[in-house]
Amino acid sequence: MAVGGYMGQILRVNLTEGKVSKEPLPPEDVLRKWIGGRGLGVYLMLKEVNPKVDPLSPENKAIVATGPLTGVTGIPSAGRWCSVTKAPLTGTIHDSHSGGKAGPELKFAGFDAVIIEGASDHPVYLWIHDGKAELRDAKHLWGKDTHATTDSIKEELAPAIGKDEAKEIKVITIGPAGENLSKIACLINDKSRAAGRGGHGAVWGSKKFKAIAIRGHMVPKVAKEDKLEEISEKSMDIIKKSPVTSQSLPKYGTAVLINIINAHGALPTRNFRTGVFPTAEKISGERIAEEIVDWKKQEEEICWGCPMGCARYSRIDKPPFTGEGGGPEYETDWAFGAQTGTDDLAAITKANFLCNELGLDTISMGHTIGTLMELVELGKVPEEKLRGLKVTWGNGEALVELTWRTAYRSGIGDDLAEGALRLAKKYNAPELAMVVRGQELPAYDPRGVQGHGLAYATSNRGGCHLRAYLIAPEVLGVPELIDRFATAGKGRWVKNFQDVFATLDSLVVCKFVTFAYWTDVMAEQLSVVTGWDISPAEFEKIGERIYNAERAFNIMSFGDGEEYDTLPKRLLEEPMPEGPSKGYTVKLSEMLPEYYKERGWIRGRPTRAKLEELDLKWVSDMLEKEGLLYG
Amino acid sequence: MAVGGYMGQILRVNLTEGKVSKEPLPPEDVLRKWIGGRGLGVYLMLKEVNPKVDPLSPENKAIVATGPLTGVTGIPSAGRWCSVTKAPLTGTIHDSHSGGKAGPELKFAGFDAVIIEGASDHPVYLWIHDGKAELRDAKHLWGKDTHATTDSIKEELAPAIGKDEAKEIKVITIGPAGENLSKIACLINDKSRAAGRGGHGAVWGSKKFKAIAIRGHMVPKVAKEDKLEEISEKSMDIIKKSPVTSQSLPKYGTAVLINIINAHGALPTRNFRTGVFPTAEKISGERIAEEIVDWKKQEEEICWGCPMGCARYSRIDKPPFTGEGGGPEYETDWAFGAQTGTDDLAAITKANFLCNELGLDTISMGHTIGTLMELVELGKVPEEKLRGLKVTWGNGEALVELTWRTAYRSGIGDDLAEGALRLAKKYNAPELAMVVRGQELPAYDPRGVQGHGLAYATSNRGGCHLRAYLIAPEVLGVPELIDRFATAGKGRWVKNFQDVFATLDSLVVCKFVTFAYWTDVMAEQLSVVTGWDISPAEFEKIGERIYNAERAFNIMSFGDGEEYDTLPKRLLEEPMPEGPSKGYTVKLSEMLPEYYKERGWIRGRPTRAKLEELDLKWVSDMLEKEGLLYG
Repeated sequence: MAVGGYMGQILRVNLTEGKVSKEPLPPEDVLRKWIGGRGLGVYLMLKEVNPKVDPLSPENKAIVATGPLTGVTGIPSAGRWCSVTKAPLTGTIHDSHSGGKAGPELKFAGFDAVIIEGASDHPVYLWIHDGKAELRDAKHLWGKDTHATTDSIKEELAPAIGKDEAKEIKVITIGPAGENLSKIACLINDKSRAAGRGGHGAVWGSKKFKAIAIRGHMVPKVAKEDKLEEISEKSMDIIKKSPVTSQSLPKYGTAVLINIINAHGALPTRNFRTGVFPTAEKISGERIAEEIVDWKKQEEEICWGCPMGCARYSRIDKPPFTGEGGGPEYETDWAFGAQTGTDDLAAITKANFLCNELGLDTISMGHTIGTLMELVELGKVPEEKLRGLKVTWGNGEALVELTWRTAYRSGIGDDLAEGALRLAKKYNAPELAMVVRGQELPAYDPRGVQGHGLAYATSNRGGCHLRAYLIAPEVLGVPELIDRFATAGKGRWVKNFQDVFATLDSLVVCKFVTFAYWTDVMAEQLSVVTGWDISPAEFEKIGERIYNAERAFNIMSFGDGEEYDTLPKRLLEEPMPEGPSKGYTVKLSEMLPEYYKERGWIRGRPTRAKLEELDLKWVSDMLEKEGLLYG
Repeated sequence: MAVGGYMGQILRVNLTEGKVSKEPLPPEDVLRKWIGGRGLGVYLMLKEVNPKVDPLSPENKAIVATGPLTGVTGIPSAGRWCSVTKAPLTGTIHDSHSGGKAGPELKFAGFDAVIIEGASDHPVYLWIHDGKAELRDAKHLWGKDTHATTDSIKEELAPAIGKDEAKEIKVITIGPAGENLSKIACLINDKSRAAGRGGHGAVWGSKKFKAIAIRGHMVPKVAKEDKLEEISEKSMDIIKKSPVTSQSLPKYGTAVLINIINAHGALPTRNFRTGVFPTAEKISGERIAEEIVDWKKQEEEICWGCPMGCARYSRIDKPPFTGEGGGPEYETDWAFGAQTGTDDLAAITKANFLCNELGLDTISMGHTIGTLMELVELGKVPEEKLRGLKVTWGNGEALVELTWRTAYRSGIGDDLAEGALRLAKKYNAPELAMVVRGQELPAYDPRGVQGHGLAYATSNRGGCHLRAYLIAPEVLGVPELIDRFATAGKGRWVKNFQDVFATLDSLVVCKFVTFAYWTDVMAEQLSVVTGWDISPAEFEKIGERIYNAERAFNIMSFGDGEEYDTLPKRLLEEPMPEGPSKGYTVKLSEMLPEYYKERGWIRGRPTRAKLEELDLKWVSDMLEKEGLLYG
């Protein structure tokens, strides 16, 4: 393969036939349009999967993808991987990302991506080792949690490759939640790193696909090797100069945001009833660093090749919530914390550990518990459903107990496993589901960050902070501080962030580098590694292509469009009751027209002209055939 | 059917073929020898099952049996049923009993017993309704806990029989623990009543047999109907006169024993290291009655036709261990309490609720957690196995967390699910397993009650307090107080209790009536109902037959005999370190010879003469054929 960074091979796993086969990556012109990771996944999904398929049917596919920068020494924070599928939680096309060490290992084993298709009639796992791959029986692993699965696989492969080598195997696996088809089940690698959102774990579960075990010794080649050191040093220098990437994140982890966002009155509290959590300090990143982080083990927890090291490894020694493991990061801390009105850091952390072990998305899990608490408070849930458990704001015990119940669909857990929207619908209060496109909103109340609200509403994968992180300019002042309550210009900001992040998700590189540098540096990194000459403009255009293609998939899936580009009524109509964001709602209708104009969309749908401009004539033909083009 | 009390029919369920069929009960002469319940089950197992079968293979059978007194109005405490099988925990023949309301319902539905044989290739449940029965698909119930299963079945059968009728359906079911083949998984009926010991839940699980749902309107006929009122009143009078059955049990439940047994220095504490639990009062029956019993719901919890009502229904409102449900009774209270050094009544009760919901035997679960705590204290368990959970004496959280882990075999739970003996063996300390024949000992340290120690050692189903409850004479003074430290005469006491209890288990009647009356009254009850003329001597002889037959089964199963009639080394060699039983070990070798003599056994095995005396020539022929007769 001539193009640098890539290994040049896709592994195709047909579970129905029980066969694995290798095939070359798409040709260079296709690669340059979609890069890898999220972009490549979206391209493959559009080419191979009917957008109307049931996400839990054999017709859906699950793609594990890296990008050309993954595992390239010298590129900071390129240790991630991504999963792309049609998600059971949302019905959208959906990419979910994870750190740790599994992504680079897939490259080292000789593959850029794995396409998992069909469904097995018995549990299997995939073993990828230095360019070879085989499906292995996983009957003995079915039912096991993610830790036990990881350990068991390493143990059983040790005789074949040696004990020391086996220790280095990376395992991506589902837990019981995925097996039980929870729509908030995730994929876990390295025991505590999650491709969390959307219910990808259930897709694997529906295919009886338990895990991927990976070990490899190859190295991705860099095209302009002579320029690697230069761009590498340049990138590192900027990272070292940014206080966010060189101070806050390493020291306090992502939960450094708890105090900051709360101080802005935008920390969603008790299911987004308010944006002020009075005891937020008790669950802050500062407290986590001070009280529960095990700094010795934290070292091992850091993602491959990351100079920031925001990951945490914690230990709780005092009952009643003892344990140890990866986490909590900001979103988890918030979801089990402020969202449920809980300031018991031990309980939050314990629930985090359980999510990792049982294979649940911490955001959706904590968020949905908050939804249940509001439903219970309003008397919407029959008492016997709770079996005497106090599902009340602030009861840390409920976090732990309900996480167990959810993973195994025990009692009320059967409803929680479906996510906040289906839960709220079942108990006749859909308006209490704080979701976009069925995905639970994360840790920023958009009434206090208008642009971020627009980003939520227009997110192709549903409620998400990582499609366009407007918190950077609206709160953190990166790259510049803009008025968080203003609406004008936000359409442009959001569109730009969405496009840049889509490309970044395709490299695959961690978004935290954007606290330090932007498209100029990233485009240069991509050029050095691939050998292409990518300008910042092309970098953005790639992302725009991906974003439009995703929207097209969703339109064909469930008729996506402006009626889905919205927010829960609470955020649009109930003014923030207190604090520094008091009185605000999200003025979405003021921002959407500008956004659509920036996008060249009509009523939430790309036009033929826009699609053709992005070399997506074939996609516009698909839409037209179904009568789904507005323009 | 001429014989009173019986419905005259057995339901045979062949799971391999997916067929149910009815057949008459064995002829009257056989019935009179084995009665019903435990006796009938043992007879059928000996006739139909090779004692060498793997308990979790399709060749094993699971028998659900009632007796002629079950469901007969006027006979006190005849609301129980029993399960007989070869148990995975012990490898012995094994009967396990449960109260509630399911036993009588089976009679009302027209059957004395159900024989479950073979194995299904998909989950099924059995629906028995007024003389009819069918196997129904249970795919949708597999994975569900016992509460959800019970509710789901009632809901799905409502359209067929009407809502009010459906409410009255009784369900016996396994939980996830049984599905996951835990060797300490139980059968649960009426949501909180357990046929607990031995792992019968795993036998059902191995057959993919999820539940039995029962509803009926027939009434067992009493042979000497004119005499029923008289014996009924007589029995009730005696029950009302006994302070145990009319005061202690209704008021304080079985946990009234906590303070009493502790005061004798015989409450096993921290895995039988001592018999004194300093803070026992905190978990006493008195405290339970005062602090957590929900007296309104307790009424519904009482077994069918029981004037004592020892059952509890509890509610814990204060985090971190909130919940409500049936329990705790004495054994549960002890197992999760003193055995683990825990005096946190809320945690104990919560663990009890979980055992009911997940289908775990509370005695084995709590006991095995205590075993793990000692293993951990002694450094026998690698730290990473515990994932930071503080598995330390007295940590109530560990009870709850480890119960979840056990039901789903998550992490260390995979080892706990195998019971104390296999756990201790795995971590190279089998001497720490406080078991007889692989079954965890219950809530009496035999160093303080010698006869009870002999009863443990010679129990056919392994460590058990209900084969011969020597606590009655040795501690409670019923029928008379005997010296608990003496050994002479205990062989005779134990043999007598074992035989009487075996018959009582076949009637099927609750053992608590023996606090009030003995064989004279019970034999009269049996005579009035059946129409036979059973003398107290015949009553005992029936039990002796059963006891010998069980021993014969065990001999053929695994070579049972004197080497199994023993106790853990700790109880034989380590003198009780403190308290009112200080300095004592169990002087088993002083008691066994007398016991064998009373039994007419040689080295723990029945002789040909004994078996023939009991009309068990056919059994002695079986033993002889295998060269297993000593005499």
